[in-house]
Order: sequence, then structure tokens, then C-alpha cells
Amino acid sequence: MITLEVKTHHRDELIDITGEINRLLSESGCHEGQIILFVPHTTAAVTINENADPDVKRDILSKLQRSFPQSDGYHHAEGNSDAHIKASLFGFSETILVHESHLVLGTWQAIYFCEFDGPRSRHLIVKIIPHAKN
Amino acid sequence: MITLEVKTHHRDELIDITGEINRLLSESGCHEGQIILFVPHTTAAVTINENADPDVKRDILSKLQRSFPQSDGYHHAEGNSDAHIKASLFGFSETILVHESHLVLGTWQAIYFCEFDGPRSRHLIVKIIPHAKN
Amino acid sequence: MITLEVKTHHRDELIDITGEINRLLSESGCHEGQIILFVPHTTAAVTINENADPDVKRDILSKLQRSFPQSDGYHHAEGNSDAHIKASLFGFSETILVHESHLVLGTWQAIYFCEFDGPRSRHLIVKIIPHAKN
Repeated sequence: MITLEVKTHHRDELIDITGEINRLLSESGCHEGQIILFVPHTTAAVTINENADPDVKRDILSKLQRSFPQSDGYHHAEGNSDAHIKASLFGFSETILVHESHLVLGTWQAIYFCEFDGPRSRHLIVKIIPHAKN
Repeated sequence: MITLEVKTHHRDELIDITGEINRLLSESGCHEGQIILFVPHTTAAVTINENADPDVKRDILSKLQRSFPQSDGYHHAEGNSDAHIKASLFGFSETILVHESHLVLGTWQAIYFCEFDGPRSRHLIVKIIPHAKN
Repeated sequence: MITLEVKTHHRDELIDITGEINRLLSESGCHEGQIILFVPHTTAAVTINENADPDVKRDILSKLQRSFPQSDGYHHAEGNSDAHIKASLFGFSETILVHESHLVLGTWQAIYFCEFDGPRSRHLIVKIIPHAKN
């Protein structure tokens, strides 16, 4: 089990961590298996989305802000209930398959750490599970 | 594979099941592995979120109700289409890692069974998968 | 690892793939284990929901369209930012348990491939992981 540190720089931010996960996979020597990514926070998440046009990230964050604004009659005194909601909507874990020593991702897919209440220093837990040969 | 019974008391409710999952893990003797939680319903879900201030739960449920109201021009005659949508948004499964016989959760994280069309008697399927030693 | 082809016929569509997954499970001979479904796209997803009344599918897609309309001041030039958002909200993977050679699903549950930017020819990656006997 590996814990990655992720530094975020804005309140809302999608950070491409595909390269880091690829590096950890390469170091592990895992040939066939699965990787579990887990976010041990309550106002951050992990997702997959497009790796090409940065406007996709911008549109996702902007629409989330408009649908789930930071101020919206909330009771939680920390002022980040919107971030708690976005985190549960996007989810705290992602499972990625490993085949022939490579992440199984589509051509346009990147893995994103989702910050919804930054900037902060965050953690991402990475577990690489080799599959037994059948 | 274990099936937990979860009794819910309101139409919308987040029920902290971390203690139950910890108990099952302890009984299993699993040292390293993963736990898969699966909700076998279509108007309930499972998520992770803050374990401290109960206002976070209240804000999450209230905002979901406002964004996805129970009456909203739906065709499904049972009157719970909002619950079906919320369930798909929060998701039916959660994967939690086990390390040194403990759930791998962040300091502020609890596991919540999400009721969106209660009160009902619900089930949660729990599968503890020990990892082979490398 | 198996790659299924999924042909979609509308911009937004929920396609019941439970029968296909059951067929693959049956062919695999897996008795106890888990199945990981993974969508290698960025404008499609996978979810679980009701298998009985088709109005549930209709209500889910209609409400998503109203909450996340196709035109909404987006910058991404392809005009499908709404589909990217819906895909991250519903999620790109699903884990289903296998017990006594059967998918562990609730009575009313079906597995749906979610098209949010069709019609297209899509792929779904299916990995059946048998569990070691304890």
C-alpha cells in the first residue's frame, strides 16, 4: 500500500495523476491485476475523464460550482458542505485494471484527483493487487 | 459473503455503518485485503463522508432533495424516481482496503448506508477478500 | 479480460447489459469471485438501476438532461461537456460479486451501460476475478 502526496493549489481543481500511477505500476512489476485508488478525505474525490482539451476540466468544475454553490443555506459551520456533496457524487475510490503491465485506460482517459476544498496537501492511497495466474 | 440488515427510519437518511463493518472485519481475522460493500437495491446507495458534525449529513440530504425533488414531472408511477437517480449518483458499491487488520479510512471518514426511499428494511452485502501474501 | 462491443442508438441511452454479463460469467466457469466492469470512454458510464418499469430509465435520463443541459455556457468545442460531467457522476466502473456461479444482484437490479453522447459504437471491459478458496 502506497500513500501519494498530492498538493492542490485552488479551491476546485482536477489534477491529472495518470503519470504517477503509471510510475508506481512500473515500479511494482505487476503484470496482470488491478489497482485500487482511495481518497482518505471527505472533500476530495477521484475520477476519470478526458486527457486532451483542458476546457473539459474547466467545464466540469464550473458546472459543479453552479449546480452546487458554496453558499446555499447550509448548516455545517465550516462552509464547505458543497465540497462534501461533490466528493460523494464523484466518489472516493476508483478501480483500474492492469493488463500486460499497463493500465487499462481508454485513449482519451486520464485519472484525476479531484480537489473540492483546497488548496491543501492531500493523500491518495494506491494498492496494486496482482492477480493469481489461472 | 455476509448480508447485513439495515433498518431505516426516514425517507432520506445517511446511516453510519462503520462500526458494523469494523466488527465484521474483526471477526473475519483478515489482516491484509479489501472489503467490497454492495447495496442490492435501486433506491439506496453507499458512500463515505464526514463522521464528526451531523450537519454535514443534514446538508447533503437537504441539497439532494432540492436538486432532485420527489415531484419533478416523472413518469414512473411509484413516485420515487428521484430516489433511483440519487442512488445511481452516489453508487451501489464501495471498496475499502484492509491494512494490518484495520479499515483504511481517513481520520474524518465514516461509511454511510444511504436511504433515499425509506423507511424500509434494507440489506447490505459485505465481502471481505484477503490478499495473498506476495 | 474481455472487451464487449455496445452499439448505442440515441444521444442518451441506458442499455441493459445484465444478460451479456451473465453469459460471460457462465462461460467463465467462475464459482466465487468478483466482476469488474470498466468503461474506457469519457462520455459514457456504467450503473445499476431498476430492471422492471422502463419509465425509470426515461425519468433518469430526462432529469439528467434538465439538470445538466447540453448547452450551458461551456467552453469545450465539441459540445458534449454535459456528457463528460454525467459520466463522472455515474462513474466508469462497477464491481459485482459472484456467489455460487451467479451475479450477486438484488431482485430489481439490472446493470446498465450509460450512453451520454451517442449514437456510437462503444466498448465495455469485463474482468472476472475468481477468489481463492479460504
